[in-house]
Amino acid sequence: MKKKLAVVALGGNAILRGNEEGTIVQQEKNVTDTLENLIHLINDGYELVLTHGNGPQVGNILMRNDAGEQMYNIAPMPLNICVADSQGGIGFIIERMMRNVLNKHGIKKNVISMITLVEIDKDDPAFQNPSKRVGKTYNKEEADKLSADKGWIFKTSPKTPGGFRRVVPSPTPKSIVNRQIIEQLTDNGNIVIAAGGGGIPVYFDENNDVRTLDAVIDKDMASSLLAANIQADELYILTDVSFVYKDFGTDKQQKLEFLDYKDTMKHLENGTFAEGSMEPKIRACLNFVKRGGSKSVVTEATKLADKSYGTKITMNYES
Amino acid sequence: MKKKLAVVALGGNAILRGNEEGTIVQQEKNVTDTLENLIHLINDGYELVLTHGNGPQVGNILMRNDAGEQMYNIAPMPLNICVADSQGGIGFIIERMMRNVLNKHGIKKNVISMITLVEIDKDDPAFQNPSKRVGKTYNKEEADKLSADKGWIFKTSPKTPGGFRRVVPSPTPKSIVNRQIIEQLTDNGNIVIAAGGGGIPVYFDENNDVRTLDAVIDKDMASSLLAANIQADELYILTDVSFVYKDFGTDKQQKLEFLDYKDTMKHLENGTFAEGSMEPKIRACLNFVKRGGSKSVVTEATKLADKSYGTKITMNYES
Repeated sequence: MKKKLAVVALGGNAILRGNEEGTIVQQEKNVTDTLENLIHLINDGYELVLTHGNGPQVGNILMRNDAGEQMYNIAPMPLNICVADSQGGIGFIIERMMRNVLNKHGIKKNVISMITLVEIDKDDPAFQNPSKRVGKTYNKEEADKLSADKGWIFKTSPKTPGGFRRVVPSPTPKSIVNRQIIEQLTDNGNIVIAAGGGGIPVYFDENNDVRTLDAVIDKDMASSLLAANIQADELYILTDVSFVYKDFGTDKQQKLEFLDYKDTMKHLENGTFAEGSMEPKIRACLNFVKRGGSKSVVTEATKLADKSYGTKITMNYES
Repeated sequence: MKKKLAVVALGGNAILRGNEEGTIVQQEKNVTDTLENLIHLINDGYELVLTHGNGPQVGNILMRNDAGEQMYNIAPMPLNICVADSQGGIGFIIERMMRNVLNKHGIKKNVISMITLVEIDKDDPAFQNPSKRVGKTYNKEEADKLSADKGWIFKTSPKTPGGFRRVVPSPTPKSIVNRQIIEQLTDNGNIVIAAGGGGIPVYFDENNDVRTLDAVIDKDMASSLLAANIQADELYILTDVSFVYKDFGTDKQQKLEFLDYKDTMKHLENGTFAEGSMEPKIRACLNFVKRGGSKSVVTEATKLADKSYGTKITMNYES
């Protein structure tokens, strides 16, 4: 069986679901349910790199950071360390649950979760327009004070009238710093958990030193870049629907099963997909096939067993 | 040049020093100063695995956990996730600074920091006598409540009269779960950061599933086991003295430059070394040579350039 390499981006609900309190026991249960479905890919001969988001977890870490400073005067950590912490904690949960799922199916494979640095351009236009909300909701007075003390930038919170949330830039990822090691690890047959939370954004300064800054990277964009960097064959973006729809939620809603580059571009130009939700996933899929990937798939974890499910994006329609 | 493999355990003061506030900037500076000295080992042809402690950092994470629950009602994380988080955050700092030190010296090597699981025996006698203090200091009323609510065990705090701290078991590490991958990574010439904070303690249940429990592992014992598991040649335990002394701090204090197995055992039986400080380091050194390692060295990072420094422990005195 020829070895194939797939990057699988676990969706937010693979770990923590909106209606849950967020205990570790819940997270472990959700992760196990999702990973169980990856056995189909492994049995089909795929080597796997798993990526994941960290929104709720890094949100909690930032809140605890704030509470720790206020209650116990503990020096707060910068955002890059919070993201690194979340890669550690979530990576451990996924690694442990993956080991147990493999064990259940009698599959002998090793699993590693690794810290992943992702290079961005410090002159990325995103730095002129920080847009990604992180951490807790503050009132106006608190937000003004933090803005003066720490230089943080705030935007109103759509969910909490009168509330403000810190916004940070979400620059485009340029390269996965750890790509060579990830390739070595998959070549050796290991399942690799990497680029958690979109990776820790870094840039190289004029001396080629690695430097940090306060930003976050979209996890699907990072997953797509990682897949291209390690020359993966396929990219799977797991979410809570088993197909992408044109005009989703309207009465002309239409299921999209196959998409080529040209038609996807047309849909994107027409604003067919929900902004900030399905649209960035489709862009990530398209970027991967544009960079040489053979196929991107958007689907639900539970549908991985049945290849008739999932929206498949390729450069050209298969003939 | 024949390749040699060394495990280097970075001491507490390699990262965070007692007299410092503990900001990330301070931690980054300390780490850089320490790592600068490892260039001597790299130039001597060593492949490296770096391990590190996490005491102050996981202490802060536990305090923030507590503050986040009290102020914002965020579900607290169990100790194993706190340790995993600290492996992420500290691992990232060490990886980034190591990359910059290598860059400064024009050395092309890749660096990876990885989550490390360490197997312990869930029937280890340490579980009958939890001894390792973790997290914040509570007053009696708080400690009694936590003891009733969460089943935590408390001991008085030697540093804070009237204070109580949670104690957890510190079992003996049995095997580094990720040892095969660490070997692959060093075989490929990568510098590996692993077993942070002594590793995340886990055990395998009757179905061979990986399970967690609340405990911490001594980082020097974990480093020694890791060195043996990956068949390293040498183990370096970096600390704040450049030699081990017999009867340190007394008027018969005597510098120990070389120690064989028999003499080390005799010293340990005589209680020559400070308990909970130098004594566990020496035991870790001895365990490594007993398991086939050629040499253990206890020294100061700044003395790595000069092999006349450092206490060298071998099975037999070199002839």
